[in-house]
Amino acid sequence: MRPLTLDALNQQLQTVQYAVRGELAIKAEVLRDQLKSGGADLPFDKVISSNIGNPQQKGLDQPPITFTRQVAALTEYPALATLAPNAFPEDVVARAQELLEDIGSIGAYSHSQGVPLIRKSVAAFIEARDGHPSSPADLFLTAGASAGVSLLINMLITSPNSGILIPIPQYPLYTAALAQHHGTPVPYYLDEEAGWATSVPSIIDAIKKARAEGVEVKALVIINPGNPTGGVLDAPTMEKVVKVCEEESLVLLADEVYQDNLHDRANQPFTSFKKVVRNLQSPVPLVSFHSISKGVSGECGRRGGYFELVNVSEEVRALVYKLVSVGLCPPLSGQIGVDSMVRPPKEGEPSYALWKKETETIHKALASRTNLMAQRLSALPGVSCVQSPGALYLFPRITIPAKAIEHAKSLGKEPDAFYAMGLLEETGICVVPGSGFGQRDGEWHYRLTCLCPGVEEYVGKLEGFHQAFLKKWA
Amino acid sequence: MRPLTLDALNQQLQTVQYAVRGELAIKAEVLRDQLKSGGADLPFDKVISSNIGNPQQKGLDQPPITFTRQVAALTEYPALATLAPNAFPEDVVARAQELLEDIGSIGAYSHSQGVPLIRKSVAAFIEARDGHPSSPADLFLTAGASAGVSLLINMLITSPNSGILIPIPQYPLYTAALAQHHGTPVPYYLDEEAGWATSVPSIIDAIKKARAEGVEVKALVIINPGNPTGGVLDAPTMEKVVKVCEEESLVLLADEVYQDNLHDRANQPFTSFKKVVRNLQSPVPLVSFHSISKGVSGECGRRGGYFELVNVSEEVRALVYKLVSVGLCPPLSGQIGVDSMVRPPKEGEPSYALWKKETETIHKALASRTNLMAQRLSALPGVSCVQSPGALYLFPRITIPAKAIEHAKSLGKEPDAFYAMGLLEETGICVVPGSGFGQRDGEWHYRLTCLCPGVEEYVGKLEGFHQAFLKKWA
Repeated sequence: MRPLTLDALNQQLQTVQYAVRGELAIKAEVLRDQLKSGGADLPFDKVISSNIGNPQQKGLDQPPITFTRQVAALTEYPALATLAPNAFPEDVVARAQELLEDIGSIGAYSHSQGVPLIRKSVAAFIEARDGHPSSPADLFLTAGASAGVSLLINMLITSPNSGILIPIPQYPLYTAALAQHHGTPVPYYLDEEAGWATSVPSIIDAIKKARAEGVEVKALVIINPGNPTGGVLDAPTMEKVVKVCEEESLVLLADEVYQDNLHDRANQPFTSFKKVVRNLQSPVPLVSFHSISKGVSGECGRRGGYFELVNVSEEVRALVYKLVSVGLCPPLSGQIGVDSMVRPPKEGEPSYALWKKETETIHKALASRTNLMAQRLSALPGVSCVQSPGALYLFPRITIPAKAIEHAKSLGKEPDAFYAMGLLEETGICVVPGSGFGQRDGEWHYRLTCLCPGVEEYVGKLEGFHQAFLKKWA
Repeated sequence: MRPLTLDALNQQLQTVQYAVRGELAIKAEVLRDQLKSGGADLPFDKVISSNIGNPQQKGLDQPPITFTRQVAALTEYPALATLAPNAFPEDVVARAQELLEDIGSIGAYSHSQGVPLIRKSVAAFIEARDGHPSSPADLFLTAGASAGVSLLINMLITSPNSGILIPIPQYPLYTAALAQHHGTPVPYYLDEEAGWATSVPSIIDAIKKARAEGVEVKALVIINPGNPTGGVLDAPTMEKVVKVCEEESLVLLADEVYQDNLHDRANQPFTSFKKVVRNLQSPVPLVSFHSISKGVSGECGRRGGYFELVNVSEEVRALVYKLVSVGLCPPLSGQIGVDSMVRPPKEGEPSYALWKKETETIHKALASRTNLMAQRLSALPGVSCVQSPGALYLFPRITIPAKAIEHAKSLGKEPDAFYAMGLLEETGICVVPGSGFGQRDGEWHYRLTCLCPGVEEYVGKLEGFHQAFLKKWA
């Protein structure tokens, strides 16, 4: 018997990188276990996982929306409507009944594309958002946005020469999916000086460069609001992006999972690519992704989301249907979470007041933490941080002293990974180095979520570590 | 702008076939919609989806286990413990509290491998089942067994020449995953005359034939109890299978999702491959898959399951960890379903009596329906049906009259697909033709689930259609 070793396994998969749950996150778990067991002498009393946008994580304490959880509990155990009649508002009982009539039991497989009633709710949500029709037939509910992104990338890659344009910095799901499905990432650079703006000339340059290298560029990924940058695209830029896709025959993959995380809604609103494509009457094939993991919902653990196909032919849709069918159906608990997200209580309904209070509290807290963190980080020597108008993150740029760079390299580490490991070991704060998202050569960043409780104490730790780091490596 | 057409998409994915949700299932949905809208004049008043093992599906009415749903509802909405103190037995409240202490909120991402506490429960379940140790570190919770199978096949395929042995007939997930990841299925035939027994000589023949054709045979899939056959392997055969894997350096992929669906437990018990491998002190790398979708749990919609790695090195396990991390985590609702499945109420606990009654009722009903259906089908002219001791299905063999075969071929259809379409259109019963699972040339079968209510009426419809079909095409 020959033992099973890495060389006998798919080599392509071994190139996959996913920094968000990489070396630092693994180390953070080790430290957390050490604290729990009590034996370790560490310079902090808790580990804060700022490496992943996980709002309801223990210690971050973004509470779930009560309406969402009440509907979920009643669909899990419908007898509660009778057993505990006073525990649920009327509109929750009605919603659960309506869902159960269509679904039957949430322990049953649904339609491969997702429960028809819930797809109707999503279509109504999209229509209200964009002012353009949406059809449940073009909607595919998914286990979070990641599952859909991975599927679409798999479909678009026809050979190792197939390229997909991805922003730099990017969310590493894209490079991971490209590695897994043996495609070529075609990087285009976001403009940090312009608040991480999407630069159309940079996209065109990237296309030219890739073609010169023999890459067939098939699709363009836009993350809006941006991850890790928090940038929000304005409508004129989006129109230019759609025009580029038309001219270059690109499929547009719009990762719009942070569409409800906006810190300055009046001045920097979210516009969907669906709306822009329809306004322009453009034929660009578009796939738009959304999720219940972010926004005020923050229901990462349910694994729910959807994508909408726009300007996609019936035969391509049938192929998508066949492929999702092999996975049977998205989790029902996630699907029901999607329904609650796209169809929240309306004014006048019993659950409305509490829902409004809860969502406003979350929006306000996130905006105020993001602003405060960006200001305080920018005030540090050698740090500049774009004041992000959207998403859950900041992506400060850090100047790392030459001595520290040298030392990091002698350890075989990226300098920003070395910085982030120091931060974790000194403060218990786990962030992700910029090298995990991509950045220009010679630049260093890290991504942190804006989800901590006790922001003053938290920022104080970031400041203290940075000052000491500069001093140590001066 | 060039529109997005199939020729611009991954050709390999277009070869994927998944009959369980194929042409017949799609037609069944159309008929169901026609019945709903009331306009159609159809010779039946309901569509019965016998094409998929979906116990809690509307109209099939296998009820969920109350304990499972009570725990689920309390973890969704923990305030219920206070709001509705009399709605939950004490052991349910305690279980939900224990889970929430480890998980925090079920709206948070968990560890990529699954909640540590739940992996501990699974390890204890495996140890009690097999009498051999199991480590939570070797366990990966999944979104149903399918997600795990697909991942492992992806990992094992290093080139289009990589082959994986699959039983014929097989569950089409295997050929679908092989097509998706561009590997080669290496079929070995189960022995219908011996009750769908797994034939070790047939496995060895298949390996020889594949190698002669230049295929590198990397792994062996065993489905036990069988899908679609319902066959259950005996321990001596399993030992021989493990020996073959040793001699031929094969990874053993054991699909054991039906391990709790046994209709004659005393005479045809389930033995896990983990137990056999450990009893033999064999070094064979084994991946064993389990799921909450089948058994008495029947919680398909939650998407929960796990796999255990046995005799797999630390570096391979680290690769699996990295790959599952890209998908973030399995659905929490599925994970909690796994906990309820592997850790049901114990004798003496408040929920035990009801749990016992519910599970015994499900086991008994399934066994009696399976036996009755197999007997009655076997009594039909031109039909033989193995009396399956396990799983949820029967796979009767049908003799199709020459004229019907000719007619089917003139329509470009497989004869058994033609038969199944007739059955659907005449009776509203949706089954899957044997051609969707694989069978010997010139043989015809179909797979039906044993999950219908009103078995007498149901079997009467099967009988009536078959008689009329024979008469029509005599």
